[in-house]
Amino acid sequence: MIVTFEQEKSIIRTLLQRLNASEEEASATAEVLAEGDLRGFASHGLLRLPYIIRALKRGTIIANAKVGVVRETPATALIDGGHGLGHHVAMRAMRLAIEKAKKQGIGAVGVHNSNHFGIAGYYAEMAVREWLIGIVTTTTDALVHPWGGVEPLLGTNALAIGIPSKPSPILLDMAMSVAARGKLVEALKEGKPIPEGWAIDSRGRPTTDPKKGLEGALSPFGGVKGYGLAFVLEVLAGPLVGAAAGREVVGTLEPVEGYCTKGDFMIAIDPAAFGSADEFKVRVQRFVAQLKGSRKAPGVEEILVPGEPESRTREKRLREGAPIADEVWAELEQLAKELDVKLEKR
Amino acid sequence: MIVTFEQEKSIIRTLLQRLNASEEEASATAEVLAEGDLRGFASHGLLRLPYIIRALKRGTIIANAKVGVVRETPATALIDGGHGLGHHVAMRAMRLAIEKAKKQGIGAVGVHNSNHFGIAGYYAEMAVREWLIGIVTTTTDALVHPWGGVEPLLGTNALAIGIPSKPSPILLDMAMSVAARGKLVEALKEGKPIPEGWAIDSRGRPTTDPKKGLEGALSPFGGVKGYGLAFVLEVLAGPLVGAAAGREVVGTLEPVEGYCTKGDFMIAIDPAAFGSADEFKVRVQRFVAQLKGSRKAPGVEEILVPGEPESRTREKRLREGAPIADEVWAELEQLAKELDVKLEKR
Repeated sequence: MIVTFEQEKSIIRTLLQRLNASEEEASATAEVLAEGDLRGFASHGLLRLPYIIRALKRGTIIANAKVGVVRETPATALIDGGHGLGHHVAMRAMRLAIEKAKKQGIGAVGVHNSNHFGIAGYYAEMAVREWLIGIVTTTTDALVHPWGGVEPLLGTNALAIGIPSKPSPILLDMAMSVAARGKLVEALKEGKPIPEGWAIDSRGRPTTDPKKGLEGALSPFGGVKGYGLAFVLEVLAGPLVGAAAGREVVGTLEPVEGYCTKGDFMIAIDPAAFGSADEFKVRVQRFVAQLKGSRKAPGVEEILVPGEPESRTREKRLREGAPIADEVWAELEQLAKELDVKLEKR
Repeated sequence: MIVTFEQEKSIIRTLLQRLNASEEEASATAEVLAEGDLRGFASHGLLRLPYIIRALKRGTIIANAKVGVVRETPATALIDGGHGLGHHVAMRAMRLAIEKAKKQGIGAVGVHNSNHFGIAGYYAEMAVREWLIGIVTTTTDALVHPWGGVEPLLGTNALAIGIPSKPSPILLDMAMSVAARGKLVEALKEGKPIPEGWAIDSRGRPTTDPKKGLEGALSPFGGVKGYGLAFVLEVLAGPLVGAAAGREVVGTLEPVEGYCTKGDFMIAIDPAAFGSADEFKVRVQRFVAQLKGSRKAPGVEEILVPGEPESRTREKRLREGAPIADEVWAELEQLAKELDVKLEKR
């Protein structure tokens, strides 16, 4: 299936509102999931809607949630997400961080009692649109093994850092594992091996068998350094914001008995607090120009800055639509039927 | 040569004061360099003193520098380091970030017109000692190639994140390259090859020849993800704080014609601004206990948290002293002689 951006957003909004999500909650979720598919992060796109619908039905995600600031200074805040839709809660958190950064030069907002929020980069870009730097991190269910360990005890803990720049912004958006769990699931379905280094089996041995990798743990990117980074992000978006850590993080992959225990941590920084915003712009452009104009390795056509590959995929898919896996579509049709909604095909 | 912590600090203080550094500047530099050697970061220890002495003589590092806050909000500041000793300037920056964090929950301080500051972890630990989270990054001369590129255009850009915890704090302190440049220099001296993945030659091909690697560029850790992280840190500790980026960063490896153009960026965060400091402590301890108590991979004796290996080396060297390379000692003896100072051996 190919769906357009507007079509995908409309489907998501309709289904969520049928399940009593507010207009604002439904629109936020629709926007971030559809942006995920546009950029090529299928695992953070429409694929997640069936999970969200199941959780809403079960009551582990609460529609029309009471989201509130529970602790605050002029530069910081902690938000209780009221177990609401993660995308809506995260947007509110970044809006508050932006507001604070505009007044104080920096704003940091933590979130707990929330849910999976889709692509972290979306929220970093909210800051970038206001010509601020945005930093976003979040925890997930434990999927990654510690260095020297065998059990999955760290989340894939996305880190997104957005930097305003002309002509196009810079957006780093990455997980702490070498590869996403979804890629192993895909390889398993297609009966293909996975590259060595992606995962270990349940006894801690490197494996190229996706099934054994899924039973074992994902490996952190960059070895012990990636482990270290995953560790500190787990604390920033976990204990710091009153959320869980390690195997106590649950509910980001599948609905659980209780509520999801993940957390988020976001920072917005105003370059104008540290110097001339114009000089910042010029210096970043000059840096990008150095990279773009430098010699390329054999076989490389172009040197890309963080976010550029996704931004190109996004432009293409805005015109042509995004591919949605047949089984995701089939599952959605079934869920829509149960909710008495008819999904429009293009 | 083996030197004790106190002996090393005394040597550094004496030589720097002979070159008109203030008591405070000399002590700060002595403290951070000696801590570098204690932790096993020889490249950031006494080895750097001859460089500092050459730069002080040349006037590209200024003794008794005028360090000042040039821009400020209640939560942020920009410091002009007055081309002073980087360690002293960085300590002042972190002290200010800590002060702001205690009042506002978060404090962010940028630095320009400064010099190489030794180990980034030292400043993150300053925050940790006050039971705050410390985040520190800094730029260096361009040594790392962009993903797909051949030329060194990114610094090794240290990132240190310190988290207060009992019984021992967590301290991530890492560079963006797979291996430090110093390790290639060492391999070259010893006539040994380097592992594949550390560096590329000047034509962009992976190499195991340290000489070719030094003529080429260091590779970022973790592939394209490490490149992305090095990129955004270069902007945070560069353009954001009014410092240079890419090949315009000079003076961190060797004294140059003009001043050093690097920058630093530091953040201190008070966990108490986001929730109960006690609950934070308990949650971090529980996370560490999960990791420590988890199953180990074949051949692994213990799972370590970030900072633990260095902290063990530190304890050992506090008792036994730190090894200093003979040629570093010989160079220092020569420099000391010129300054009419006698170096004490143990």
